[in-house]
Amino acid sequence: MAIGVFDSGVGGLTVLRALRRELPGRDFIYLGDTARLPYGTKSAASVVRYAEQAADALVARGLSCLVIACNTASAVALDVLRRRYAPLPVVGVIEPGAAAAVAASRSGRIAVIATEGTVNAGAYDAAIRRLRPDARVLSAACALFVALAEEGWTEGEIVELTIRRYLEPLLQAAAPPDVLLLGCTHFPVLAAAIRQAMGQVMGEAMDQGLAIVDSAATTASVVRSELRDATGPAGSRGSVRLLATDGVARFARVGSSFLGEAIVADAVELVDLGR
Amino acid sequence: MAIGVFDSGVGGLTVLRALRRELPGRDFIYLGDTARLPYGTKSAASVVRYAEQAADALVARGLSCLVIACNTASAVALDVLRRRYAPLPVVGVIEPGAAAAVAASRSGRIAVIATEGTVNAGAYDAAIRRLRPDARVLSAACALFVALAEEGWTEGEIVELTIRRYLEPLLQAAAPPDVLLLGCTHFPVLAAAIRQAMGQVMGEAMDQGLAIVDSAATTASVVRSELRDATGPAGSRGSVRLLATDGVARFARVGSSFLGEAIVADAVELVDLGR
Repeated sequence: MAIGVFDSGVGGLTVLRALRRELPGRDFIYLGDTARLPYGTKSAASVVRYAEQAADALVARGLSCLVIACNTASAVALDVLRRRYAPLPVVGVIEPGAAAAVAASRSGRIAVIATEGTVNAGAYDAAIRRLRPDARVLSAACALFVALAEEGWTEGEIVELTIRRYLEPLLQAAAPPDVLLLGCTHFPVLAAAIRQAMGQVMGEAMDQGLAIVDSAATTASVVRSELRDATGPAGSRGSVRLLATDGVARFARVGSSFLGEAIVADAVELVDLGR
Repeated sequence: MAIGVFDSGVGGLTVLRALRRELPGRDFIYLGDTARLPYGTKSAASVVRYAEQAADALVARGLSCLVIACNTASAVALDVLRRRYAPLPVVGVIEPGAAAAVAASRSGRIAVIATEGTVNAGAYDAAIRRLRPDARVLSAACALFVALAEEGWTEGEIVELTIRRYLEPLLQAAAPPDVLLLGCTHFPVLAAAIRQAMGQVMGEAMDQGLAIVDSAATTASVVRSELRDATGPAGSRGSVRLLATDGVARFARVGSSFLGEAIVADAVELVDLGR
């Protein structure tokens, strides 16, 4: 049975990419709910409803594990989906992301950048403090990052200035954080630009180490540990099936940079979640 | 009976503002389909379905006129909605916007900036050429403008650089346009920044006149002409009822600058379009 992965759109393809690296023999089925994206500015009630519909469509196809590759949906819908599909393993990206951040931090001062929905839910705060009760978590909602990533603008002056506008208040604190957690699956495509802009802002403090971490690799490890037969048939490369709820041509075009491999529009199946 | 106005979110409030100025005695009911915004990156089929649901919710409340205050929905769903509700007058923003652009242009060279959905539909091209067959229409999709407007970033270096990146290719043509049509209801809040940035790009050509026009005022005139008793009860100020399909607090916060008057979150009614 395949591993099911869903997100509001293309962002979760950064998680699928890490899953494919961790579990190359496995089959995957990915659903991007592009008809309702973005989730990050929607209310928790709407995101829960959308997540249930997206997950239902995947679970109906038969899964060994369900991955919520969207921070906003993980923040507000993980418990609901775990109850709904028990005993199917359901893995979100918040707890793995929090674990990666805590592992990378010496000082316990962690900055989290995410969508408005994820920040408002406070899920990273809670998950980080569960692992390290003395942690100090600073959060910022970076709405423009999603638009920049979707537009394919991942470097240059506009990107740099936008990064500085959002991050300077977080990183120029008296006691700056030593970890910056990318709490939205769109943000890894901006990681190089963030590293560069932060080097300019923080100077020496950055040289002393600001680790930029995201949820993708640790989520893939958690998924691997949930599966009994982790590797799949020896030597074979698993398949990937891609579904989207709207605009398959756009999904293929924008998604290729997130997945790190070319996506052919014809290969993306349009599905209807019933509005 | 009220005049119904709908948009994917807060952008159409720029049209409501013009309608209130043109028809101060009238009652209005406005629906922002914030649960599914933005429409501008969605497929035509999805936008038609969303527009039908939004319009159904308004028409069920009893209307004297329905205004599609969203360029993307006007571009793809106007004919469908006119048939669906005949003989109710249904007014979109594309034809009024095209009329404003043609009236303002001496040379017939008109630049249109809009969302991806509106540009792909080619509706402005067609509407402008119906009014002036020899017109030369240049179009550009400016996805970041929606995000900037929603974030409340309407001036400063990031805004200026983004404007220049999108508009320089349009405006530095050998024969530059003399009209720039803002073909998305989000864009009027960026009009001052666009004027300033374009002054820097075009220099003398701008001094000789680049008119920046949008659909709001001409749409309000068309609505006025569709109504028999245009003014409403003499001397009274009509009411405005605001509905949103998600996130009423965010709608109130972001929408106030679009409407040009404060919106209290408690005054925004949450509606469910079915699902």
